[in-house]
Amino acid sequence: MHIALLAGDGIGPEVTAQAVKALRAVAANGPQFDFTEAPIGDAAYDTTGDPLPEATAELAERADAVLFGAAGTYESDLRPPEQRGGHALLRLRKRMDLFANFRPVTAFPELIGASTLKREAIEGVDLVVLRELTSDIYFGTPRGVHVTNGERVGVNTMRYTESEIRRVAHAGFKAAQGRRKKLCSVDKANVLETMALWREVVTEVGREYPDVELSHLYVDAASMHLIRRPRDFDVIVTGNIFGDILSDAAAMLTGSIGMLPSASLNAEGRGLYEPVHGSAPDIAGKDIANPLASILCGAMLLRHSLGQPAMAERIETAVRRVLAEGYRTGDIMEAGATRLGTEAMGDAVAREI
Amino acid sequence: MHIALLAGDGIGPEVTAQAVKALRAVAANGPQFDFTEAPIGDAAYDTTGDPLPEATAELAERADAVLFGAAGTYESDLRPPEQRGGHALLRLRKRMDLFANFRPVTAFPELIGASTLKREAIEGVDLVVLRELTSDIYFGTPRGVHVTNGERVGVNTMRYTESEIRRVAHAGFKAAQGRRKKLCSVDKANVLETMALWREVVTEVGREYPDVELSHLYVDAASMHLIRRPRDFDVIVTGNIFGDILSDAAAMLTGSIGMLPSASLNAEGRGLYEPVHGSAPDIAGKDIANPLASILCGAMLLRHSLGQPAMAERIETAVRRVLAEGYRTGDIMEAGATRLGTEAMGDAVAREI
Ligand SMILES: CC(C)[C@H](C(=O)O)[C@@H](O)C(=O)O
Ligand SMILES: CC(C)[C@H](C(=O)O)[C@@H](O)C(=O)O
Repeated sequence: MHIALLAGDGIGPEVTAQAVKALRAVAANGPQFDFTEAPIGDAAYDTTGDPLPEATAELAERADAVLFGAAGTYESDLRPPEQRGGHALLRLRKRMDLFANFRPVTAFPELIGASTLKREAIEGVDLVVLRELTSDIYFGTPRGVHVTNGERVGVNTMRYTESEIRRVAHAGFKAAQGRRKKLCSVDKANVLETMALWREVVTEVGREYPDVELSHLYVDAASMHLIRRPRDFDVIVTGNIFGDILSDAAAMLTGSIGMLPSASLNAEGRGLYEPVHGSAPDIAGKDIANPLASILCGAMLLRHSLGQPAMAERIETAVRRVLAEGYRTGDIMEAGATRLGTEAMGDAVAREI
Repeated sequence: MHIALLAGDGIGPEVTAQAVKALRAVAANGPQFDFTEAPIGDAAYDTTGDPLPEATAELAERADAVLFGAAGTYESDLRPPEQRGGHALLRLRKRMDLFANFRPVTAFPELIGASTLKREAIEGVDLVVLRELTSDIYFGTPRGVHVTNGERVGVNTMRYTESEIRRVAHAGFKAAQGRRKKLCSVDKANVLETMALWREVVTEVGREYPDVELSHLYVDAASMHLIRRPRDFDVIVTGNIFGDILSDAAAMLTGSIGMLPSASLNAEGRGLYEPVHGSAPDIAGKDIANPLASILCGAMLLRHSLGQPAMAERIETAVRRVLAEGYRTGDIMEAGATRLGTEAMGDAVAREI
C-alpha cells in the first residue's frame, strides 16, 4: 500500500515524521506501507517555482492515500495566489475531487482542563463537522477585482449545483448512520438562494435515510449553539465557507486543537489526511509542536482509505494511553504532567503501539 | 425628539414596551420623546400584505431614531423572500443605508456564571463587533436558482466596492479611538479576492489613524481566537456575512445574549436599535422574555442618535443596579436570585432610573 507524504511547510515535516513512525510501528507485523515524499507549499515554490508541482499532484493521485502536513505561511499569503503555499492545497482538493472533509471533534477527558469552556459544557463532546470542500465561494466564478466608475470592486461567487449538494448530503447521512443518527445541516437559507437550494436538496436526500434525524440551523445560530450546547451535535454538514469557520470554532471548544485530525475524501474513498492545526511557522523546527493530530491522521487514513480499522484503533489506543500516562507537549501541558518534545512524543506513541 | 417604534414579531412588542418605559422614566424631567408605532415583519404582512409597508419605511426614515424589536419567524422563512418578516429588516437596513452595525459584547460580572466559558476566560471581556450591514453576499447580484444541464444551480454574489469598505473602516477606526485603540479586521484574504481588497482598503484607511493598532485575522482564525482569548479583542470590523456569524458567536461567549443591544447607523448617525436576540416566538406573550437588551438599546439610541450620553448612562447604571440587587429574568436566573417577568423587570429598571 502506497502512501504519499506531502509534509509541506512550518511544523508539517516534523509532525508528519511522527505519524510515519506510528504507521511503521503498527505495520511491523502486517502489511507494509510504501512511503513516497514529495514537495508542496512554500517549500515546493522555493525550489520549483510552483507550490503544487505536477509531479507532486500526480503522486498524490496515484497513491492509495495522502498524508499531508501543512502548507503556506503568512508571508506567502501576500504573494499572488498561484505563488502561495496555501493555494496548493486548494488546487489539490479540487484536482482530486476531495469533496467530503470530515473533521471529528472529540473531548479527550485528559485534556478538558485546557479548554476555555467549562468541563460540564464539553465533557462527552463527540461531533463531526462534514465540510463540502470543492465548491462554494472558494471556487465560483466570476471572481476578482476590477475597476468600475473609478473605484476598485471585489467580486466572488457562491455557487452550488444540486449534484454537489446531493453527494455531500449522502456522505453526511451515511456518517450519521454509523454514529448517533443525527444530522444537522447548516445553511443561510433565509438570506441566500444558494443556501435555500442547499436546504431543499439536503431535505430531499434525507427521505432516503428515514433512520437519521435531520435538523437545520442557520449558520449564525449554529455558531451560537456550538458554544452553548456542543454535546447536542452528532454530524454537522455544511458548505465550504461556513464549514471553514464552524469547524475551526468547533475544534477550539475542547482545548485539543493540536489533537485533531481530518480526512478529505473523494467518491472512491481515496483521501488526503491533514491535521486541523496549520503550519505554525513560529514554532517550526523547535521540536515543540504537538504531533498527535498528525499521528491520528495516520489512524484515519488506515480506517478510511486503507481498510485497516484494527490498525487504526491500535494507534488511537496508543495515543490515549500516552495521554493517560501523563505525557504532554507544551500546548496541552498542565501541572503534574511530563513535558515531551515532538520527537519524544512520537517515540512514546510508537512504543505504546 | 421623535422615535419610531417598530416592535415587530414574537417577543418584540413586550420587550420594546419595557424600553419605552425606561426612556419615559429617564426623560421625566428633561426633553420629551415622541413615540410613533408602526407595523413591521410578519405582523405587518398579515395585515397589509407587505412585511415592510411603505408608511413604516417612511416613518423610520423621518424619525430621529428607530427602536426595533424583532422581525420574522421560522414559519415565514419558508415563504418567498418578499413575504418574510425577517426580510423587512434587510430592506430597511438597505433603504436607510445603515451600513455600520455595532454590537458591543460585555461580560456583566453578575452574569458570568451563566456562560459556558470559564470565568477566567471571559472576565473583563469588553469588545465591539462592527459588522458592515448593507453590502456583501446579502445584496450582491446575480443571485438566484436556475436550471443548467438539467439540474438546479444556486448562485449568490459577494461584492464590495472600495468606498463601501472605506466607510466602515473609518467607522471602525473611530470606534477604536474612543476605546482601547485596537482594531482587528477580519477577512478571508487568502482565498477570496473581495476580501483581499477588504484587507488592502482597511490597511490604506489605517494610515490615517496612526494611534490605532490595526491587526488582521482570517475569519476561521477569528472564530477560534474569540473562544480562546476573547479579552484580547477591542473593536472587530468585518463584512456582512462574516459579521453575522462572528457577532452571534461573540454574543454567546458571555452568557448574556438576552442582555445585548445593537446599533445600526448610517452616515448621518441616524440609526436603528435592535436587541441581538431574535423574535423567540416560542416564549412570546408569556411575560418571561428578558427586556434588558431592548432597554439597553434605548441607552445606545440616546447616546448615538439623540446626543444624550448622560441619559444613556442613567439607563445603563439602572440596569447594573437591578442586576446587583439580584433581580433576574428566567434566561439568566441563578440560585439565590429573584425571578422577575418581562413587565416586572421593566418596572424595576424604571424605578431605579
Ligand atoms: C489555508 C486555507 C486556504 C484553508 C481553507 O480556507 O480551506 C484552511 O483554512 C483550511 O481550513 O484548511
Ligand atoms: C434575520 C436575518 C436576516 C439577520 C441577518 O442575517 O442579518 C439576522 O441574523 C441578524 O443578524 O440580524
